[in-house]
Amino acid sequence: MDTQPLYRRLANRYLDAIKAGSLARGDKMPSVRELMRLHDVSLTTALQLCRHLENEGWLEARPRSGYFVRHPRRLPLAPTREPNPALPLDPAAFVGIQARVSHFVAQGQRYPIQCNLSGARGAPSLYPHAQLNLIASRLLRKHRQLLVSAGTHSGNMALKVALARRAVASGMTLAPTDILVTHGCIEALNLALRAVTKPGDTIAVESPTFYGLLQVLESLGLRALEIPTSPQTGLSIDALELAIRSHDSIKAVVVVPHLQNPLGSIMPDAHKQRLVELCMQQGIPLIEDDTYTALTNSDIPLLALKHWDKTGNVIHCASLHKTLAPGMRLGWIAAGRWHDQVEMLKYAQSRHNEEWSQLTAAEFMNSAAYDRHLRRLRHTLRAQREQMAEAVAQYFPAGTRLVVPEGGLMLWVELPEPISGSRLFEDALQAGILIAPGTLFSNLIRFETYIRLNCGLPFTTEVEHTIRRLGKLAENHLPR
Amino acid sequence: MDTQPLYRRLANRYLDAIKAGSLARGDKMPSVRELMRLHDVSLTTALQLCRHLENEGWLEARPRSGYFVRHPRRLPLAPTREPNPALPLDPAAFVGIQARVSHFVAQGQRYPIQCNLSGARGAPSLYPHAQLNLIASRLLRKHRQLLVSAGTHSGNMALKVALARRAVASGMTLAPTDILVTHGCIEALNLALRAVTKPGDTIAVESPTFYGLLQVLESLGLRALEIPTSPQTGLSIDALELAIRSHDSIKAVVVVPHLQNPLGSIMPDAHKQRLVELCMQQGIPLIEDDTYTALTNSDIPLLALKHWDKTGNVIHCASLHKTLAPGMRLGWIAAGRWHDQVEMLKYAQSRHNEEWSQLTAAEFMNSAAYDRHLRRLRHTLRAQREQMAEAVAQYFPAGTRLVVPEGGLMLWVELPEPISGSRLFEDALQAGILIAPGTLFSNLIRFETYIRLNCGLPFTTEVEHTIRRLGKLAENHLPR
Ligand SMILES: Cc1ncc(COP(=O)(O)O)c(C=O)c1O
Ligand SMILES: Cc1ncc(COP(=O)(O)O)c(C=O)c1O
Repeated sequence: MDTQPLYRRLANRYLDAIKAGSLARGDKMPSVRELMRLHDVSLTTALQLCRHLENEGWLEARPRSGYFVRHPRRLPLAPTREPNPALPLDPAAFVGIQARVSHFVAQGQRYPIQCNLSGARGAPSLYPHAQLNLIASRLLRKHRQLLVSAGTHSGNMALKVALARRAVASGMTLAPTDILVTHGCIEALNLALRAVTKPGDTIAVESPTFYGLLQVLESLGLRALEIPTSPQTGLSIDALELAIRSHDSIKAVVVVPHLQNPLGSIMPDAHKQRLVELCMQQGIPLIEDDTYTALTNSDIPLLALKHWDKTGNVIHCASLHKTLAPGMRLGWIAAGRWHDQVEMLKYAQSRHNEEWSQLTAAEFMNSAAYDRHLRRLRHTLRAQREQMAEAVAQYFPAGTRLVVPEGGLMLWVELPEPISGSRLFEDALQAGILIAPGTLFSNLIRFETYIRLNCGLPFTTEVEHTIRRLGKLAENHLPR
Repeated sequence: MDTQPLYRRLANRYLDAIKAGSLARGDKMPSVRELMRLHDVSLTTALQLCRHLENEGWLEARPRSGYFVRHPRRLPLAPTREPNPALPLDPAAFVGIQARVSHFVAQGQRYPIQCNLSGARGAPSLYPHAQLNLIASRLLRKHRQLLVSAGTHSGNMALKVALARRAVASGMTLAPTDILVTHGCIEALNLALRAVTKPGDTIAVESPTFYGLLQVLESLGLRALEIPTSPQTGLSIDALELAIRSHDSIKAVVVVPHLQNPLGSIMPDAHKQRLVELCMQQGIPLIEDDTYTALTNSDIPLLALKHWDKTGNVIHCASLHKTLAPGMRLGWIAAGRWHDQVEMLKYAQSRHNEEWSQLTAAEFMNSAAYDRHLRRLRHTLRAQREQMAEAVAQYFPAGTRLVVPEGGLMLWVELPEPISGSRLFEDALQAGILIAPGTLFSNLIRFETYIRLNCGLPFTTEVEHTIRRLGKLAENHLPR
């Protein structure tokens, strides 16, 4: 049985036609109305079909003329290599990341930085400041005592309603009261881990994973067991299954199913479903980090792990911080079976969030302007990622590998041996450039040849020069 | 050697004169100018002298006429009893407070509440919303990308400068970089405890203490050793010394030196100094919770424990939440020797605070309006506390005891036996009144006959009726 939605099946047929040459580059696609008639489908399906092919790079929309066939640009770079499945699973190791991050941060502060490509953040210009300012100022005029009234425990109801409503598109059925508002996704992850583990426990995480998570684990006294993760399809479920069989003490699994940091990988639905079922059967809490999902190329939302959760075993952690407003520390958690515990922990850890930011976010999220903002953000980020990737292809040494992710804020770049990401980091620093060395993203020594580049900045000539400079610095590491 | 400041010594002389009758009720006090001449003192000292006597209730200021002698109202109530020093120190007990608080909260939600006296919070009308709104809106116009720009790690520098500047008055010498901004004092306490303890450790706390702290301890897997605490002078240093001698495993001491919650006690300077030295000598980190200090009757700031700290052994935790704006979750920590560790923990736990509220607070704190606000707040709270205390004296059963604290938001009321605070809580609930039963404030069963009443609300006839109603309900518990 074909479980793909109708628009995807139709899109595949058009894709076959394009690849076979029967729809050539520059040809006009049938109009949306024609598609409706031709395939006897709804307006929505016809639109989804076109948008999907547009998102995949096979169509381009020309204002007032319709969709035209194009061919996605192909980078002259090989994709990042898949993890070696034969590598022995490292025994649960205490993370020692704090010292490494401290060193990284301290280094970054020792030099004047001209171009910072080390973060995973969007430039302020990507976000709707004018609309948010308008809403926030209006709220202060309307609720004059907003800044001097204590907020509501577990979060403002208007925001929770807005979040629950939007969660539907990701396949989650949540009541507003299933949601707790947090200070960013990082607080949500802290609470989730505190609810399901105790110090000394072993947690399975992706390898590589973002150093923020490794810091959380270290600060809570937890051990990280790193599971091989594909730059394309994310966490290897086979490897996880093996790990569960050989380490009977895995107390939680933390996964970023969409636009994983740093890889940018997206787990296929079948993997997600298998993961949820595996964790449920094994009685291992599954913590889902959904920070980047709204930043995918496609406007059609991906299904959250929580979609397949039937027993409350999935703890969904999310954030508006990278999607809506980097100046507002808003995250949320739907903690399933652990809701009450997490609520108590949140209260004991930091009390409620501030009301003004929650109300501002709620009002904006309930307007059509939010969807317009997201569409614009996705398109801009996509363009920036592609430009960055092309610059890397152009300026970095032969043998450099990368996969351009289907969304998000970053590129994970594999350098040809023997170039060391850490040494490139040090050299770049002295040139006023900050990048994130691969070694930050794991406790193991497997990512020495990687770096992560932020694509959240507008791709200016300055950024292009920076990439060229980095490429030169990397060349210097090659034997002559 | 008399270590009291000059104004205090002079004030005592006038107090003697008042008590001896040589300055009678209604007499005019010498003017500030006369005082300067008479005693050859500065304007500041003369003013401090008058304000001190005014704060103690012995003078009243009449606009444009000067200060006049009055006699403080004396409540016809005995003071709350001192803790019994002969009681055995309970062995470190795991706190089991979460369940009790959950029950308390759930109960409160089951009934429609008309009058909530259970909190420790001021009414919104006590806080400067108009000025804060003005600053906040202006900031958004001036820094248009404030809501969409990521904040600074460890807190906004303008706020840290304002905090450091104001800390001088409490005898603390802090550089702005010694300070980390947190989500309220509760996050500061979490970070402090996480930095200096590990699960299973025993922490010395005041008995009674606020249940928020007991929740934090329980959520971090810590044991609370409750140290007898005087309703007047706070933590018993003798009892603490004994505890340290008999339990060699005390890993931290948490103290609210000023306006302790729930007692309202204020530690004398000599006790504070002895406490700091004791902890330093014993190598036990001392965590100071300064939440309420700005709410004392007197405008002359009390000295923080950290004032006597020479080795970085005192971790100072504070908050603007009850002082400046209950709608802004701003706290801070000066973590002494543990600064770097706390900084890392804060980053891993919740990242930075939002910039907007920090800038708003900084701007307001740097203006004279903040001092005017504090003076007004202190006076209003004082009046509300006294009115509340008088109502309790009038309506509660004979044998009720209380001490009217020298500041803060609450009254700790000792009911005559065999009245049970928990039963009164239950009966009050059914009458639509929420109070805090004494049993919430300890793990032991010593505070069954106590309740805590919030004085942050304007003392309306509704509140007065509520107190009368509570008095009646309490009477019902007495044997006939
Ligand atoms: C995967 C992932 N989760 C969580 C976070 C932190 O999210 P927030 O800023 O919402 O706390 C980050 C930030 O870099 C991230 O990359
Ligand atoms: C003594 C004490 N410390 C800390 C807190 C929590 O402070 P904040 O609201 O700043 O987190 C409270 C609140 O009731 C308190 O009474």
